[in-house]
Amino acid sequence: MNYYSESINNLIEELAQLPSIGSKSAQRLAFHILNLPEERVERLSDVILKARKNVRYCRECFTMTDSEVCSICSNPKRDKKTIMVVEDTRDLAAYEKTGQYEGVYHVLHGAINPSLGITPSDIKLKELLKRLQGDVDEVIIATNSSLEGEATAMYISKLLKPAGIRVTRIASGVPVGGDLEYIDEVTLYRALQGRTEL
Amino acid sequence: MNYYSESINNLIEELAQLPSIGSKSAQRLAFHILNLPEERVERLSDVILKARKNVRYCRECFTMTDSEVCSICSNPKRDKKTIMVVEDTRDLAAYEKTGQYEGVYHVLHGAINPSLGITPSDIKLKELLKRLQGDVDEVIIATNSSLEGEATAMYISKLLKPAGIRVTRIASGVPVGGDLEYIDEVTLYRALQGRTEL
Repeated sequence: MNYYSESINNLIEELAQLPSIGSKSAQRLAFHILNLPEERVERLSDVILKARKNVRYCRECFTMTDSEVCSICSNPKRDKKTIMVVEDTRDLAAYEKTGQYEGVYHVLHGAINPSLGITPSDIKLKELLKRLQGDVDEVIIATNSSLEGEATAMYISKLLKPAGIRVTRIASGVPVGGDLEYIDEVTLYRALQGRTEL
Repeated sequence: MNYYSESINNLIEELAQLPSIGSKSAQRLAFHILNLPEERVERLSDVILKARKNVRYCRECFTMTDSEVCSICSNPKRDKKTIMVVEDTRDLAAYEKTGQYEGVYHVLHGAINPSLGITPSDIKLKELLKRLQGDVDEVIIATNSSLEGEATAMYISKLLKPAGIRVTRIASGVPVGGDLEYIDEVTLYRALQGRTEL
């Protein structure tokens, strides 16, 4: 049974299909949207459509961007010989926020996950190998510190090392400001393994 | 600083303005949308715009609906002499879901809230009074059980009683399945006051 009119129901149903938006949240969002000024709703609708239409993968690093080549790959100041491999565009943005990385990126769009049927050929790995035919000094693997991220890191490392490319992995350890007693054993063990001289 | 391309940033900014969607959720939603098939995104964009354009207030009860008169007000089987007053369209839907109410509704679109500057003239109260000039047996006040809802109920009741209209208020008490030890004192007191003969 529908308790709302057709347009409202359609809106609620579409919103409820978005991730982590349940049926109650979808109703709340729908009525919020219905009560917005019409020009605001037009903008929201338009921005959604335009983003989907304009955004594509960067020809070089495969990040999601508006142009054929993203602003990082087309920046002459970035060091093209250092490539950081990340799982997705949000991870790239996370490293950009540090303002400390001057190399370029390679976005895999996923991680190897046999239980979900995601194999090496489902992520942008061929494309990475192709880039490495150029002049590359170092590949920094910055996949997530999850099971899949680690497996992907191992896979890439095994693939690249025989080719004589320097492959590094970002450090695992205690997050800055982290309280040791709340940190899991695996992280503590990793932090110990990765200890550095003071 | 923007770490995403323009279209992606615009999308994230619009989504982050929706209620209870923070910046991280907005990013997650944005990338979910960017990864959807284009026709799904077109539908989402279209449904948002259409809902806002099609939805208006029912001429009779002021609920949000697609037509001039909503499906409840235009249903000849509904008892037009009983009017349930609710704060918004979602509250109407909540009562419709019970399947037990056969009267019609009146949607106030808010509750009196002096601290937010919402006065009786800001809600659809004039419109309610106008409806009561017709043949009405009972007005059931089903505003929320919040401070504002209670104040609105009192206000309406004082307004209508002198006119000789039967005004009732939905019961306050322990929710079905509710465990007494977790229920606040005011609710317990209300439940006691509202006790009925067995």
